[in-house]
Amino acid sequence: MVATTHRSAPPPDPALIAATLASAILKGERRALARAVTLIESTRPDHRSIAEGLIESILPQTGRATRVGISGPPGAGKSTFIERFGLDGLNRGRRIAVLAVDPASKRGGGAILGDKTRMAELSRAPGAFIRPSSAGAETGGVAPRTREAILLCEAAGFDTIIVETVGAGQAETTVADMVDMFLLVLPPAAGDELQGIKRGIIELADLILINKADGPLLDHAHRAAAEYANAIHLVRPAYSEWQVEVRAVSALQGDGVNAVWDDIARFRLALEETGTWARRRADQARAALLAEIGTALLDRFRSTPAVATRFHEVEAEVRAGSRTPAAGARMLLAAFLGETQAPPV
Amino acid sequence: MVATTHRSAPPPDPALIAATLASAILKGERRALARAVTLIESTRPDHRSIAEGLIESILPQTGRATRVGISGPPGAGKSTFIERFGLDGLNRGRRIAVLAVDPASKRGGGAILGDKTRMAELSRAPGAFIRPSSAGAETGGVAPRTREAILLCEAAGFDTIIVETVGAGQAETTVADMVDMFLLVLPPAAGDELQGIKRGIIELADLILINKADGPLLDHAHRAAAEYANAIHLVRPAYSEWQVEVRAVSALQGDGVNAVWDDIARFRLALEETGTWARRRADQARAALLAEIGTALLDRFRSTPAVATRFHEVEAEVRAGSRTPAAGARMLLAAFLGETQAPPV
Repeated sequence: MVATTHRSAPPPDPALIAATLASAILKGERRALARAVTLIESTRPDHRSIAEGLIESILPQTGRATRVGISGPPGAGKSTFIERFGLDGLNRGRRIAVLAVDPASKRGGGAILGDKTRMAELSRAPGAFIRPSSAGAETGGVAPRTREAILLCEAAGFDTIIVETVGAGQAETTVADMVDMFLLVLPPAAGDELQGIKRGIIELADLILINKADGPLLDHAHRAAAEYANAIHLVRPAYSEWQVEVRAVSALQGDGVNAVWDDIARFRLALEETGTWARRRADQARAALLAEIGTALLDRFRSTPAVATRFHEVEAEVRAGSRTPAAGARMLLAAFLGETQAPPV
Repeated sequence: MVATTHRSAPPPDPALIAATLASAILKGERRALARAVTLIESTRPDHRSIAEGLIESILPQTGRATRVGISGPPGAGKSTFIERFGLDGLNRGRRIAVLAVDPASKRGGGAILGDKTRMAELSRAPGAFIRPSSAGAETGGVAPRTREAILLCEAAGFDTIIVETVGAGQAETTVADMVDMFLLVLPPAAGDELQGIKRGIIELADLILINKADGPLLDHAHRAAAEYANAIHLVRPAYSEWQVEVRAVSALQGDGVNAVWDDIARFRLALEETGTWARRRADQARAALLAEIGTALLDRFRSTPAVATRFHEVEAEVRAGSRTPAAGARMLLAAFLGETQAPPV
């Protein structure tokens, strides 16, 4: 072949790339899954295009797994718990994916390395897949991208998807909205020693585990478990089908951790029996639809020049109390509509 | 004067009506205030127009009052508490407005009558103003209209505005977002007798009062107070300046109710000292601005023909799991933008 002129290679076909990745993922190929999880976090339009085609392809093969959110403050021993819990699950024949969600983290290899050191044995196990699933500094990006990562893992054959929240912000609420069951792992502090759990977290939990119930902290752990059990009792349960339990466990010694798999099975069975399981997933999906529409509309609104030039001033007036929120909204919406209104047909 | 032709009277000038009402309200005229509160709840465009002018006129005379939210389940004795609390406040020289918020109520005379029977003595007192401030069946309408009602009461000279939540739904969260301090009044049940508080409510409270601590329920009330105090202790406080207290009171006998005025004063002082008071109001106002913009954008979005025809289908697909929320949002947003995009200049 004689090369006469330089011609650039035709651009890769997004549909072909998506199809190739989908095929590999559905076969359970670990590297394809990892590539895909990285891809869905990219904001490049060409990557997004491939990601959208990919998700659409694999979607029919998703939905059967159990999605478990795990959260807890620093010092709770969450990593130790997840590793032990994961290994127990593998022993039971589960195929487990662990996604770490941290809205505030910077993307990068450091986080990945950290995770692999944290749960070294689990990350090496063939039946497990561990992956940080941060989405950069935008909390708005965490939810949709994590949802997609969950779907990819399910398509790859994992039957239990653990979504672990780390860091500050509203990660817990975000994750609770996309999982089936929410586990809270707490340190064995109680009474005066307690720093206090972030507000709103306790009520998200379907199961509360007081970790480090071993050695000198054993009594503390049981005392803490009793206190949380009393507190739970004061609040109306989320589901008539499920009574939230509080238990002292030891991830280090393996006490009470394996039993959590039974709890998950019981929870799923109880909620499936009444149709609540499916109904909850449908409600979560709908809420996510509205949230994404709302975010997109607000972004478009705020970036419209007529709004952008006025927003901070109106916001400042509203904050100062010299303009009501209703009046401020009216002004900005009028500016928005004036600029964007399509002329009547 | 000879009438030769019939001419309709010129329409009333909204600005004039607004100015007249504002003037009367600022003089503290009770009837004008009542008319104004009714007016702001109307959705008629001409009424809205007057309301907007009215609010703008009186706004500079607002902001100094203390806004107190009071909530609690049926059976807590909330009305008895508010009446006693209100009368105690009047004795201390307070001028008190009570607005009842029920997102689900149908507007009408029945509700108003009910309230006046509920707090008969307080409603007759010259220094008090009691008013249901429902906004029909639209929860979206409750918040902005109640905010405006609060402002009108402040302009009329009331220094304490009580916003009472009744009914189901998310009224508590809505009200907590527009008051300075949130009081929870609970029945004296504890342990096994407890029905359970709606999730998320306990953590909104700055002060929890276990009512009916009298007669045979005295021990129950104290036991309940201890249980709630323990539960509060497990959660990080909302403010470093304020420790949430739980107390047993008797609205019927007047035990511990008058002291709540001291709590309110302490709370305000503590938060004003650190600037938290003002900062919180500013944050609330900003959040309300964004919420109202979001609501208006979503309403406009959903009523756009290209979206309206597709929305239910896409929503159903998303609920069923056959389309991701992200994909559904993209489709609907594309339809919206296709229809509403102003042509480039």
